[in-house]
Amino acid sequence: MIKGVLLDLSGVLYVGDRALPGALAAVDKLERSGLPVRFVTNSSRSTRSMILEKLTRMGFAIPPEHIYTAPMAVRRYLREHDLRPFLIIHPQLEAEFADFHRQDPNVVVLGDAGPAFEYESLNTAFRLLLKGAPLLSVGDNRYFMDHDGLSLDVGPFMAGLEYAAGTRALVLGKPAAEFFHGALAEIGCRPDEAVMIGDDAASDVLGALRAGLRGVLVRTGKYRPGDEQMIAAQGVVAEDIGAAVEWICQKKRQAPE
Amino acid sequence: MIKGVLLDLSGVLYVGDRALPGALAAVDKLERSGLPVRFVTNSSRSTRSMILEKLTRMGFAIPPEHIYTAPMAVRRYLREHDLRPFLIIHPQLEAEFADFHRQDPNVVVLGDAGPAFEYESLNTAFRLLLKGAPLLSVGDNRYFMDHDGLSLDVGPFMAGLEYAAGTRALVLGKPAAEFFHGALAEIGCRPDEAVMIGDDAASDVLGALRAGLRGVLVRTGKYRPGDEQMIAAQGVVAEDIGAAVEWICQKKRQAPE
Repeated sequence: MIKGVLLDLSGVLYVGDRALPGALAAVDKLERSGLPVRFVTNSSRSTRSMILEKLTRMGFAIPPEHIYTAPMAVRRYLREHDLRPFLIIHPQLEAEFADFHRQDPNVVVLGDAGPAFEYESLNTAFRLLLKGAPLLSVGDNRYFMDHDGLSLDVGPFMAGLEYAAGTRALVLGKPAAEFFHGALAEIGCRPDEAVMIGDDAASDVLGALRAGLRGVLVRTGKYRPGDEQMIAAQGVVAEDIGAAVEWICQKKRQAPE
Repeated sequence: MIKGVLLDLSGVLYVGDRALPGALAAVDKLERSGLPVRFVTNSSRSTRSMILEKLTRMGFAIPPEHIYTAPMAVRRYLREHDLRPFLIIHPQLEAEFADFHRQDPNVVVLGDAGPAFEYESLNTAFRLLLKGAPLLSVGDNRYFMDHDGLSLDVGPFMAGLEYAAGTRALVLGKPAAEFFHGALAEIGCRPDEAVMIGDDAASDVLGALRAGLRGVLVRTGKYRPGDEQMIAAQGVVAEDIGAAVEWICQKKRQAPE
């Protein structure tokens, strides 16, 4: 019985700047299915409004409130704990954090900063960690599928700082159970009635399974042969977003109502 | 019975560009003691001749052949295995590797690259690792004591790439047993007759203990209170290089000859 759907964006709906084959039709079908949907992403190379613009440009019709991002979860955490962040984030994400006090920082925040991962800023972060500042990260993803191939995501830099300072990061995006549950709370859906679709076997699918959801791994985006082994028998594997939505709609039809 | 001495350089003899108090006299005493000596360093921010120049400028009188560096061990490894390196190293170390073929690289080499740790080069390295290239590192050091405080060493970037590509680096400098044994081979000394002095509890002292040497931890350089706990009862703790050399000379006098 499936009553709500979470989906990853990059690698599931598109790669680089191009919609994946069948993705437009699949999203359309899903949004018309009556099932509540949230697009959940650790993507932190752009703001939510930039993500929306990009989706619209590619032809997806997704309401803004259906998008739930890890940077949004970070914002909420910083506000709740009244923290002053030292940010290592992508230049395009700076606007999302423009309203935070940043002098005398007392927490390190890592996003998928791309070219902003530089020695000097990482070293400043390291020194703050040594002084006891906690380390927050939008995710622990190892890599993502960029337009020219697999590329380093935030995870390796998080792991490096953890190793340097002998500390552990608090991950606020996927695969944290709190993140999945936060998205489900918005659509009023229990974990055992929800399914998560993603191309990252560890962060999307294993994370969802551990948070009590079902998980579907798609063989697009960053998927690499053998990734199925990570999700064992609990997860479902689908060729792409089209096949995953087809499977969900069948499950929905099978459900006794 | 001590018949040979290995010493770390940065943080033991000097910090930044300044000799530590008592270090000049201690090195002088050690070099006159008759004990064979090697200065063993993972330092990879400069070539051996630059290290020598710096030592001379600070007043140390150390013969070139007494210095044994991790980049020298890397050079030897690359030659022996006929490898074409993709180098992420400090700009000042480039000269040391100028004679290697670097087109179509089939191995990734990490040094303490400092500002040369950039997203683009790390991403290129990551893609080579995914294609099966091995990962070599001059060390796994977490940090070193720079003139303005503790700073990130090569280890965190090594750990990040290991995490990203799901691989393990081959460390050719300290704490690899082979590195200590290579230095001891030069002075014809067995591990159980040798002692290593360092400010890095993990890389210098634990590494030496595991390689069968004795180990002395000095409370200078990157030493932080509590580091003693890492080396347990096996290692010796000395206030600084002066006290460590004093201890060694006593041990030497006590030895039955």
